[in-house]
Amino acid sequence: MDGFTRESFGGRVVFGPGAARTALADGVGALRVSKVLLLTTKRAEPLARELTAALPVAEVFTDVREHVPAEVACAALGVATREHVDCLLSVGGGSSVGTAKAVALSMRVPIVAVPTTYAGSEMTPVWGRTEHGVKHTGRSPDVVPRLVVYDPELTVGLPPAITAASGMNALAHAVRALAADPVTALVGGEAVRVLMSGLPKAVAETDRTAALYGAYLAASAFAVAGSGSHHKLCHELGGTYGLPHAPTHAVLLPYTAAGAVRGLRELAEEIGAPTSLRAIGMDADDLAHAMGRLPDSADLLAAAYEGRWPA
Amino acid sequence: MDGFTRESFGGRVVFGPGAARTALADGVGALRVSKVLLLTTKRAEPLARELTAALPVAEVFTDVREHVPAEVACAALGVATREHVDCLLSVGGGSSVGTAKAVALSMRVPIVAVPTTYAGSEMTPVWGRTEHGVKHTGRSPDVVPRLVVYDPELTVGLPPAITAASGMNALAHAVRALAADPVTALVGGEAVRVLMSGLPKAVAETDRTAALYGAYLAASAFAVAGSGSHHKLCHELGGTYGLPHAPTHAVLLPYTAAGAVRGLRELAEEIGAPTSLRAIGMDADDLAHAMGRLPDSADLLAAAYEGRWPA
Repeated sequence: MDGFTRESFGGRVVFGPGAARTALADGVGALRVSKVLLLTTKRAEPLARELTAALPVAEVFTDVREHVPAEVACAALGVATREHVDCLLSVGGGSSVGTAKAVALSMRVPIVAVPTTYAGSEMTPVWGRTEHGVKHTGRSPDVVPRLVVYDPELTVGLPPAITAASGMNALAHAVRALAADPVTALVGGEAVRVLMSGLPKAVAETDRTAALYGAYLAASAFAVAGSGSHHKLCHELGGTYGLPHAPTHAVLLPYTAAGAVRGLRELAEEIGAPTSLRAIGMDADDLAHAMGRLPDSADLLAAAYEGRWPA
Repeated sequence: MDGFTRESFGGRVVFGPGAARTALADGVGALRVSKVLLLTTKRAEPLARELTAALPVAEVFTDVREHVPAEVACAALGVATREHVDCLLSVGGGSSVGTAKAVALSMRVPIVAVPTTYAGSEMTPVWGRTEHGVKHTGRSPDVVPRLVVYDPELTVGLPPAITAASGMNALAHAVRALAADPVTALVGGEAVRVLMSGLPKAVAETDRTAALYGAYLAASAFAVAGSGSHHKLCHELGGTYGLPHAPTHAVLLPYTAAGAVRGLRELAEEIGAPTSLRAIGMDADDLAHAMGRLPDSADLLAAAYEGRWPA
């Protein structure tokens, strides 16, 4: 065994069907906070209000957006400081918790996250903020949620296309972790197994628990592993050509992980995840531009653009 | 899958042969501390001084003792406050890091641990302190070391009897974790596998790396799992009849884990761990007394006293 360095992050996770209704209030209560800013999407607002009815919610911020634009981060921070909140509670996917993280970076108040997708940001120290079209990211222990409540019931009804793309994003986290230290790789390997068998059931709405458990495992391993070449490529394409986050992961993962994990492309087809960059909005000019800027990835990009079966 | 709650603790781990010589100074430097109290045993003091030669060590405290007697904790706290240290660095086994924890509980300064046995306390939030013959224990995130440097080279030459008993103690941590949440059980299961194959090699001095890696896995899982009935029984016997900590685990583990993990007794015999309570200092009167106080464990105690093969 080679030596390794491993930096992990603590926190409390409550996992289980119904947990958002049975364990959220007690979990937040244990943090001894008195004024909560609820961050969520307009679509999830009714659910979020229902789940937090027993909590001291001072204000609800629903203007979250993907990649956390600077103006959104500033608006949320403005509300949080005006209301003197001492806790940020996100109910939603990566955009909601991402906005909470942008606020926590300035205010240093604890985050509680109730994920409704497989985005995984709730387990990581990674924050992001987009300014003038450029996404800046960083790592800080201050943005790791202190409490995460995973409730598979909240993911019931998540449209199959979002389930598939978000699930492949989670799988990308798990695959990345396979190349990290042996403890992280152990958890990542378990995440790959759980997601490969759980995602088809989640898309078919026969069992939502395994996919969310796999996404949690994947995110907790990814939090330690940090991003690799696959994630850098996805962020590069997303930032420059405006491609959506999770579908970009879904398309590229079978290419970047080719060889490391068998059956990724078959899984993507089975669950209906997008399989070509063209299908998620890239055009031929963008492809040519990207191939010129990223010569090391040119062959991969050309194949992924067409959705040609990876070698 | 049932629901679960999981509370884990963050920190940095550096693992590898030679890591105490190559990574300790940088790791402590990254914590931006300026005055270090070194806690170690008299036996390990020369090694500890050598490893910390490049660090700002203000004082060395070598009067650590097993189970952290209150007077030892007070003496260490006195030195730490007098010297205004902002870091506690332990080089040693459970007694050294246990003393550091007792100080950190009052002072809230970061702990750095360099383990030289498989005791595992370096990964846990558990502190202990013995007053008037009674050991009080508790859990606090303030006592979890911020940096742990595992260097298998420091365990080379650890006498076979200590290697065996300390290794069985680590195995008890791993076995306990099998009954915890699924993530903790995953790590605990890996720890069982690594320790079962690694401990014989460590005792034979053919490979020290696997045993220490297994002990780290076991401790990190145990930190989340918390103690179970095996540990409560061992502490009860240790506290009341003055039995040594690690050997008590070694004797009782094959009995308390009987069925959960096969081959524990065979392993204990192979590595020369003690296999009866009588062999580690219990007498017949103590046995009768213990059987009376702990009627649920009476059969187990009678068998373990004699070292009869567990059913």
